[in-house]
Amino acid sequence: MSQTDTTSPVTTREEHASCGGRVGFYAHASTSLGLEARFGLFLPRQALAGERVPVVFVLAGLTCTEETFLIKSNAVRFAARHGLALVASDTSPRGAGAAGEDDSYDLGTGAGFYLDATAEPWRDHYRMGTYIGQELPALIEATFPVDGARRGIMGHSMGGHGALVHALRAPQAWKSVSAFAPICHPAAVPWGEKAFTAYLGPDRATWAREDATLLLEAGHTHPTEILVDQGEADQFLHDQLKPELLEAAAAKADQKLKLRQHAAYDHSYWFIQSFIADHIDHHAAILKAG
Amino acid sequence: MSQTDTTSPVTTREEHASCGGRVGFYAHASTSLGLEARFGLFLPRQALAGERVPVVFVLAGLTCTEETFLIKSNAVRFAARHGLALVASDTSPRGAGAAGEDDSYDLGTGAGFYLDATAEPWRDHYRMGTYIGQELPALIEATFPVDGARRGIMGHSMGGHGALVHALRAPQAWKSVSAFAPICHPAAVPWGEKAFTAYLGPDRATWAREDATLLLEAGHTHPTEILVDQGEADQFLHDQLKPELLEAAAAKADQKLKLRQHAAYDHSYWFIQSFIADHIDHHAAILKAG
Repeated sequence: MSQTDTTSPVTTREEHASCGGRVGFYAHASTSLGLEARFGLFLPRQALAGERVPVVFVLAGLTCTEETFLIKSNAVRFAARHGLALVASDTSPRGAGAAGEDDSYDLGTGAGFYLDATAEPWRDHYRMGTYIGQELPALIEATFPVDGARRGIMGHSMGGHGALVHALRAPQAWKSVSAFAPICHPAAVPWGEKAFTAYLGPDRATWAREDATLLLEAGHTHPTEILVDQGEADQFLHDQLKPELLEAAAAKADQKLKLRQHAAYDHSYWFIQSFIADHIDHHAAILKAG
Repeated sequence: MSQTDTTSPVTTREEHASCGGRVGFYAHASTSLGLEARFGLFLPRQALAGERVPVVFVLAGLTCTEETFLIKSNAVRFAARHGLALVASDTSPRGAGAAGEDDSYDLGTGAGFYLDATAEPWRDHYRMGTYIGQELPALIEATFPVDGARRGIMGHSMGGHGALVHALRAPQAWKSVSAFAPICHPAAVPWGEKAFTAYLGPDRATWAREDATLLLEAGHTHPTEILVDQGEADQFLHDQLKPELLEAAAAKADQKLKLRQHAAYDHSYWFIQSFIADHIDHHAAILKAG
């Protein structure tokens, strides 16, 4: 990217040298969202030298933006060590104008749940499923030296849900997957019930493809081991996250899952930064072997 | 600290397990500032087990708070590795009510310059010099298991200035010192001239004790090597930071200085996080040998 490349669909907002590579924040006109969208990108030194590098998409949780994960997770230093790119999407469309989108932290702005809404007033713009599943990877791979054949996905909380469902539905597109404190069974918890009712409508049959536990129960698996870290002092563990349901569904589906539970850790990025090295290692081992 | 310890002068705002230790944010009634003040603290696992550990104070730059350095620098993971505590102060008093304190980013709120103001309307509350030099270390050492005899100081930009002047004036109190992109000669650059004129008045003779280059020229040195990292693409390098003046003064004073200049890096925390490990190593090597 260059700030003077007027033919690119991507506008550079800021770029910073970091850890031998470069962190940048960009904007583009999203066709799936029908709005301008922003993303963050770390390119390691190998990519700046022209090599096409493996890439991990990182999906943040409720209320976050495209900046949050890159700033707070400490992931950049480990991606640099492995020569991986990182792509951080936003958590929802911005400025869609849907009635009520700014009324609560867990629905609408900052809370897109990485799915395509089918119900009013959301369905015109809240299409984060297509955005993450198709548009953003295609844009990134057309614009930057990253290798779409070696692409992984990870996320936190709502973004952990997003990473799991995208990888389980399209394991050939997402070669590696991990999550911090994911919403494991959104159809069965308050955050997910509220969001799915609003975005997808009351017919719960339509919710199944957006729920990692239900996808496993329906026979969707991923060929690699899924890494999940969960803090035992997480304030959302019992009411919203429910990793034990994911674990049970994975066992029935013969899905390899490494679920690690950590005493004293909560839901914050202080937890994520404590274990991020293991996640980047996990993705690097799969993506660089492929 | 415990949230139910009603005898402590320190109030816990939040605490999070991180990297085997604990990050917390606290408030207390500051006698030197005459206001409530906030600070951040990382305690490594050794401290949580009761051991008195070495400590590094971290001073942030203009517009930052007590949260910024701990969140953005990636320092916690390296402090954990070495068993060091980190103390992050705020960058100014908050809510002092001084006329004009919120009018610009480089004077007043968020811009205390780690000195004691002597001029109106600042002198009643803008006493960050005493706060950093005496009050906060004494409070920390009375409240948490950190060892005041093994105490270092580091900072960024305005906070790099603060770290250098505090360490040069009181080398027995601050056993190790380093800085990222410090304001090396504030009396000779716009940021410093504006702040010193406001806080100290127009008599430049009173500025000398608040300027690292002038302190070196006056014979103040530190018994250890000072580590300074500077990005060559820093937008403030030539007008505000001037490391070449610090380097010249250090050479004349026989002050050991390791000044590293890094192509492509700017003034941001993306730069800091790229070299933070070396700074924590620097402090650990001195503090743990002492």
